[in-house]
Amino acid sequence: MTNYHALTQAEAVEYAHGIEDVFPDGAQLKSREIGDGNLNLVFHISDPASGRALILKQALPYAKVIGESVPLTLDRVRIECEALRIQGELCPDLTPKVYAYEPDLALMVMEDLSDHIVMRRGLMERGRYPLFAGHIGSFLARTLFFTSDLAMDQQEKKLRVKSFINPELCNITEDLILYAPYTKSRMNIFEPHIRDAVERIWADKELHLEVTLLREKFLTKAQALLHGDLHTDNIFIKPDSTKVIDPEFAYYGPMGFDIGTVIANLLLNYSGQEGWSTDTLERTDYRRYLLDTVHDLWTQFELQFRELWNGHAADRMAKTRGYQDLYVARLLQDTIGFAGVIMLCRVHGFIHVADIDHIEDAAARERAQRIALEIGVALIKRNRSARSIEEVLDIALKAVN
Amino acid sequence: MTNYHALTQAEAVEYAHGIEDVFPDGAQLKSREIGDGNLNLVFHISDPASGRALILKQALPYAKVIGESVPLTLDRVRIECEALRIQGELCPDLTPKVYAYEPDLALMVMEDLSDHIVMRRGLMERGRYPLFAGHIGSFLARTLFFTSDLAMDQQEKKLRVKSFINPELCNITEDLILYAPYTKSRMNIFEPHIRDAVERIWADKELHLEVTLLREKFLTKAQALLHGDLHTDNIFIKPDSTKVIDPEFAYYGPMGFDIGTVIANLLLNYSGQEGWSTDTLERTDYRRYLLDTVHDLWTQFELQFRELWNGHAADRMAKTRGYQDLYVARLLQDTIGFAGVIMLCRVHGFIHVADIDHIEDAAARERAQRIALEIGVALIKRNRSARSIEEVLDIALKAVN
Repeated sequence: MTNYHALTQAEAVEYAHGIEDVFPDGAQLKSREIGDGNLNLVFHISDPASGRALILKQALPYAKVIGESVPLTLDRVRIECEALRIQGELCPDLTPKVYAYEPDLALMVMEDLSDHIVMRRGLMERGRYPLFAGHIGSFLARTLFFTSDLAMDQQEKKLRVKSFINPELCNITEDLILYAPYTKSRMNIFEPHIRDAVERIWADKELHLEVTLLREKFLTKAQALLHGDLHTDNIFIKPDSTKVIDPEFAYYGPMGFDIGTVIANLLLNYSGQEGWSTDTLERTDYRRYLLDTVHDLWTQFELQFRELWNGHAADRMAKTRGYQDLYVARLLQDTIGFAGVIMLCRVHGFIHVADIDHIEDAAARERAQRIALEIGVALIKRNRSARSIEEVLDIALKAVN
Repeated sequence: MTNYHALTQAEAVEYAHGIEDVFPDGAQLKSREIGDGNLNLVFHISDPASGRALILKQALPYAKVIGESVPLTLDRVRIECEALRIQGELCPDLTPKVYAYEPDLALMVMEDLSDHIVMRRGLMERGRYPLFAGHIGSFLARTLFFTSDLAMDQQEKKLRVKSFINPELCNITEDLILYAPYTKSRMNIFEPHIRDAVERIWADKELHLEVTLLREKFLTKAQALLHGDLHTDNIFIKPDSTKVIDPEFAYYGPMGFDIGTVIANLLLNYSGQEGWSTDTLERTDYRRYLLDTVHDLWTQFELQFRELWNGHAADRMAKTRGYQDLYVARLLQDTIGFAGVIMLCRVHGFIHVADIDHIEDAAARERAQRIALEIGVALIKRNRSARSIEEVLDIALKAVN
């Protein structure tokens, strides 16, 4: 990695000129840095004349969010590129195109999605995306099924596990999502007004056992190639299109982690509605939409996953009577458990969500935080006995009534 | 691997001369090929004058057992060496010493164990090894605990998973142990007199579901660095010493596979006693010894595993209340299930055991085969509900009464 250096704006523009078939010859390119700045530089490079644009993303060799003292390997760009390639083959309409990848500079160039908005923002504005459940259900079903032992040559799958060993990024999840929120750690950030609820979580031994079992799955269960970070900031959306970005946390893990991450983020917005509308009817109505989306997402996922299994399973024992039902039942349980841990870490852990943190009224924000914590704890405690997605909706409804 | 060629006897001797600190200068070395010939050349090279000897083992680039048409990577020697190094650090008294490793020639040189006998032979002669249960319990507890997420730096463990990705050797287990015996496959070899029992296994849907779940664990559960082939031909023994050899199947898998393999091989010998003694009292007495050994082995394993956990767990959530008990309970269940599948494949699958196949009397051999199949099927069906090792003993006793 001797040739690596962080690009200047000017260098980014120069590099973008070299990408074929995007900009007209002699285009006057403009550039702005649009990264959220945690782990990467992200340049949006556009030609105002033709209206064309692309994204140039370069990994930084440290985690900016924690300070330069936390180094991160640049290998994550290889992992992200390779994951985008696989996701793009399986779900071409749901994955941004990659135009170039430069290992030495840890950079890649990809499709501009400026005509989409970040889904978290969309939900905070009470946007409705009737195609979303089907799109993301399909993304989950196809990426998880086709990268698993159910569908792949099982010896090829082992080589893929090897190429997606991703210690540093997994470590972030293992620490910040699956450990710190359950202990009095400096990595937890929360407002004093919810300290009582957080302390109950720190003291809840039944909860800790469930989290430990989920964490064990994250550490050991090489079930499918996960996106690994499928929250609503990593989903770009417009009414007729959904794009999943940023799979730099990709690794072989338990399928339920990805499905649970999407559901958790819908339920975090559901909790946050406490602060986004004072009109009770409007709030109830949008929450109903969010729960319908959770329900449809799981239903679409399950339907497509079972169809793929029936039509495309390569595993010679996949047709064993009872196996598919048991597999899907355990998937739902993992999904519910991981949804719970992801909700909690986003309320009192290290990285929060705007759906709740940006609520201006302190009392409403506190109510939202308490609702999210209540749902998260209930999902985690229910996970091993859960039998249907309706239980998730019941838990969510109970928390606001 | 351009320099690779299979060594002649003369070349093996020349190579052995170069190993330091084994033979006196100018020793007149003798060599004989002692491999079972499946996957490797094995030369025993000795100096009759000093009584010193060593083993030179070279991997062949194909599986001789199936014919030269099945190529195998020579990378398995790297895996075997690396596994022996790790096992040797954790259990120096139970692992042969490695003197040299030559990657280009896919060969390694190690300690001669001629003063030990192959444990399968020892059991067929009704030998008793009172230290065995403690030795192998310790080997299993230490190698499985210290290579797992419970004890290792969890990011280092991921790199170790990567270096032990072992597709070809795992494929042998996945095909010959975890698939073929449950289907009418040409990879099954059995005598016509047990066809009815084998056909019942092929038709037993309840059994197939359990095997499919165990197979899924073998495919996905990266719990600890397994030996991967811990049968009694890979254990060298004498009254005061036990050595575990040949970890070329090593990979990160479910701990219960290794423990179950040892137990299965004790129970295969237990089944075979039908043909090794016509004295009922003697037979019953030796079977009691074998069941005591199964019981002690599990008990020793559990005791040491729990002690290591209490004293050496690095995982920050390992102390979570209830986790250790649940972990050990699931380990026992996996152990019982894998013991069952290993028994079955050794009766009607591709590779049999001498404990049963070498029984000369056809009626006794048939009885032994039927006992082993009955125990194997019962263990598999019991696995998910099992609560104690006594259930294994009950199943074994019932099969001979």
